[in-house]
Amino acid sequence: MANKYDWAKTFTVDFSMINGLSKTAEPTKRYLSKVAPMFCDQDAVADILKNGDLLVYEFYELDAPEAPGDIAFGTSITYPGRVGREFYMTKGHFHTILDTAEVYFCLSGEGGMIFENPEGDVRYEEFKPGIAVYVPQRYAHRSVNTGTEPLVTFFAFRGDAGHDYGTIETKGYRKLVVEKPGGGYELVGNPKWKAEI
Amino acid sequence: MANKYDWAKTFTVDFSMINGLSKTAEPTKRYLSKVAPMFCDQDAVADILKNGDLLVYEFYELDAPEAPGDIAFGTSITYPGRVGREFYMTKGHFHTILDTAEVYFCLSGEGGMIFENPEGDVRYEEFKPGIAVYVPQRYAHRSVNTGTEPLVTFFAFRGDAGHDYGTIETKGYRKLVVEKPGGGYELVGNPKWKAEI
Repeated sequence: MANKYDWAKTFTVDFSMINGLSKTAEPTKRYLSKVAPMFCDQDAVADILKNGDLLVYEFYELDAPEAPGDIAFGTSITYPGRVGREFYMTKGHFHTILDTAEVYFCLSGEGGMIFENPEGDVRYEEFKPGIAVYVPQRYAHRSVNTGTEPLVTFFAFRGDAGHDYGTIETKGYRKLVVEKPGGGYELVGNPKWKAEI
Repeated sequence: MANKYDWAKTFTVDFSMINGLSKTAEPTKRYLSKVAPMFCDQDAVADILKNGDLLVYEFYELDAPEAPGDIAFGTSITYPGRVGREFYMTKGHFHTILDTAEVYFCLSGEGGMIFENPEGDVRYEEFKPGIAVYVPQRYAHRSVNTGTEPLVTFFAFRGDAGHDYGTIETKGYRKLVVEKPGGGYELVGNPKWKAEI
């Protein structure tokens, strides 16, 4: 697809402050059937899919140049829901250039971001509207919707940072974000996490 | 001042979605008395200052590391008002590393951003809530409030980009954003612009 925007010139992109959707840009949609392996409870996945597929999250990639001087940006929308006890979430990724950071600014909804670095440091930060969450260099990051409305964030990172989804897809995250008995959320160990790949 | 945030770890910062202000971070405030030279009509400046000083804009610098792998971010709040026909605006700047971009996402208010590059290309993009404006590499950029409420934007750029305020302070912008007779705004030539410094 030809790049819709001329990144050497100024341009604007519209995103709804309520649901994060753009009237002019094309989202990338992630349905449960395609991201099923990232959830721990595969019986719960199968139960849901019996009744049809569901949209777990979507986001905007605007084809920013893969250049260190450009800034990629867009919105990410993670829908509310659970697969078993596990909340809906994004696949999550490291940056291919590991030592590049990112920032997410929450516009709507509630949830959090779970992080881990290659050394195994796991962190979690909560999102609510008006909260900026800093993704430091070297941390894989995944958005999690622990609420009842779409979790909408605006993100920005260096154009050449790149996305490494594979490491997370293969190893999984060390921790899961699940519904806490009685309400709220909690982090629990991921029984399927693999130390080595 | 010691850096309040550990940029090697995750952290959050709060910004109001309405007025852009943070309850926890310290803003940099720009009063009319200090930014007076950027306005064209110095008689109008003097008239206003007779009745006391006014806050033209404020923004958050969070002391991001000056590193190519980090992302600086914060909010910018330009208040509504005029000096003569000219709307309240920020000083505007080039990045010290000229070939680094930036993105601004409008949270509240209305106005625009005026741009120019060293070759003299002048551009203008409008802000309203939900509009992301891309600042390409090599373009000086200044926020202008053409409305009646605070213009609030969330911005993100590379940590090492740096701010070159001096070039704009000395030369001025090629164009001014002024009230249009009958309402609205228009761009007019800056009679004080200097081709060479």
